[in-house]
Amino acid sequence: MMVRRVAILGDGQMGLVMADLLAFPSAELTRDVAVWCPMGGSAGLEKSRSSSRLPDFRLPDAIAVTADAAEALAGADLVVNAIPTQFIRSTMERIRSALPRDAGLLNVAKGLETASRLRPSEILRASVGERRIATLSGPSIAAELARRLPAVFVVASGDAGFAEQCREACSSPWTRVYSSDDLTGVELAGAVKNVIAIAAGMIDGLGLGNNAKSALLARGLAEISRLGVALGAKAETFYGVAGVGDLATTCFSPEGRNRSFGELVGGGRTPEEALAVMSSVVEGVATAAAVVDWARRTGVDMPISAAVGRILAGEISPREAVGGLMGRQGRHERVVT
Amino acid sequence: MMVRRVAILGDGQMGLVMADLLAFPSAELTRDVAVWCPMGGSAGLEKSRSSSRLPDFRLPDAIAVTADAAEALAGADLVVNAIPTQFIRSTMERIRSALPRDAGLLNVAKGLETASRLRPSEILRASVGERRIATLSGPSIAAELARRLPAVFVVASGDAGFAEQCREACSSPWTRVYSSDDLTGVELAGAVKNVIAIAAGMIDGLGLGNNAKSALLARGLAEISRLGVALGAKAETFYGVAGVGDLATTCFSPEGRNRSFGELVGGGRTPEEALAVMSSVVEGVATAAAVVDWARRTGVDMPISAAVGRILAGEISPREAVGGLMGRQGRHERVVT
Repeated sequence: MMVRRVAILGDGQMGLVMADLLAFPSAELTRDVAVWCPMGGSAGLEKSRSSSRLPDFRLPDAIAVTADAAEALAGADLVVNAIPTQFIRSTMERIRSALPRDAGLLNVAKGLETASRLRPSEILRASVGERRIATLSGPSIAAELARRLPAVFVVASGDAGFAEQCREACSSPWTRVYSSDDLTGVELAGAVKNVIAIAAGMIDGLGLGNNAKSALLARGLAEISRLGVALGAKAETFYGVAGVGDLATTCFSPEGRNRSFGELVGGGRTPEEALAVMSSVVEGVATAAAVVDWARRTGVDMPISAAVGRILAGEISPREAVGGLMGRQGRHERVVT
Repeated sequence: MMVRRVAILGDGQMGLVMADLLAFPSAELTRDVAVWCPMGGSAGLEKSRSSSRLPDFRLPDAIAVTADAAEALAGADLVVNAIPTQFIRSTMERIRSALPRDAGLLNVAKGLETASRLRPSEILRASVGERRIATLSGPSIAAELARRLPAVFVVASGDAGFAEQCREACSSPWTRVYSSDDLTGVELAGAVKNVIAIAAGMIDGLGLGNNAKSALLARGLAEISRLGVALGAKAETFYGVAGVGDLATTCFSPEGRNRSFGELVGGGRTPEEALAVMSSVVEGVATAAAVVDWARRTGVDMPISAAVGRILAGEISPREAVGGLMGRQGRHERVVT
């Protein structure tokens, strides 16, 4: 079954680029797409069809824009969650009654809910009950998607038919999509990479170079895949597009919030000062606490995440952390497969 | 047994930084290190103790510099090969008779011999017969090592005792070293990453962004690990420091030759024009031909390497290659573990 009518929840950067992607006509069909603006302001977006954070982007005229959730959701067979993770629960509770009964949910948010440590699909399930749910992930800097530059995604769902439906819907001349059955792995990879990205930013702030950052990427990947496997994910997910692909862009792209935050701390600011400089949420800070706690409970060795946790807690400096990691006894390299 | 006397074959960038590393005194011992200059010029290096290609580097005074191979090799218990891969065979044949009988060989060159497609340790074995041989790899931009910035290596050998000896010798306050028994995997990873780096450079030259480059890194890693496994390597090596770590620095560091060559081709030069612009060998060009041939013989699907091969042969443009890769039918993501 093909997706014919899409409601996008959220008018942030990812909401807008997903609207542009899903409204792009294929040879077989044209989809109706509506964007819901959860905080109002729909008249402004409807008129300007642009975003101050996405240069050169223009929302196609055929896409409806509304502040009325019921209007956006009416008749939708696919509902895209582009609400940031910390606000998924409260937003879904607001609009739950307007969700069409058979609509599947495609989540594009990354991260963990701070209080509960739940992944986006788990929050969605807790908010709206049993439904077809998938998560789309991969290297996805919104400003590049807004320019329709090529991107490769993974869409994961426990429901193979729904994953395939989402895969087809999100494929376009500029996006290639793989399907996966490892929803846990894809969502964990999208969250825990932010902790490694903070560490990568610290390497930048300390001026330690690309050898150090690339080794950090490799050893960070090794520890987050160990944790993922302990939490029920598949190792291979971490070595794919949603794993190492997303990790690479998060560690190397200058614009990332988590990397930028780490760079400020590596450059000498305290974590509190650096958070004050950042204008928006730094997901990896809360994620680091969750990761350190999970590592302790599962007995998984995560030296890089532990060091980030101690730096954020003010216990050690970034330079002391590097000294500690470099001074560990060498041994056979361990990688889970 | 600890390494006490080291001969470095080659006075290029990697030869000089390995000399600096191995001469660094530990609490237990100070090693004698001699650098052999295969093309003469030892008087200049002995006096200047610097390299025009390594800003701020100074070769410590205690390190001997000589154009006489017998002098450099006399009494050495460890011989470091820092001769580029294409010149290993002819150089080793020149100096074979001066190699101390029990000295182990630690190779730091990467790549494949163009005519034979042999890996460095295989060329060494063919040139000097049965010996303890190890290869050191990982993200290792020489200019960063010259500044003693932190780096993490893997040293691989079929001889576990020799790997451990090299691991100990190459560990320092700025270098952390893992050991591995997968010599095939470590050497293959160090060679075939250059093909993916050429493709990464093309993405830069076409201005396609970091989403595309990071997805390329992930899918490139998937195909080179598939090939590696088919050729007898372990999958895990490709997901470690010598695999994805080296691949990341090669794809993202602006100074890399293979990435820079790809960027020229992506920007519109023909492969011949781009090779003429580059002042030195672009290893990935010959490696691409070997990889395409291995893929055909082993039946391994390597779409990115195949596209690089066709671009280098002048059959398609980089933009056509991107279109072809993005237009492939989506499916379940495959990663070997």
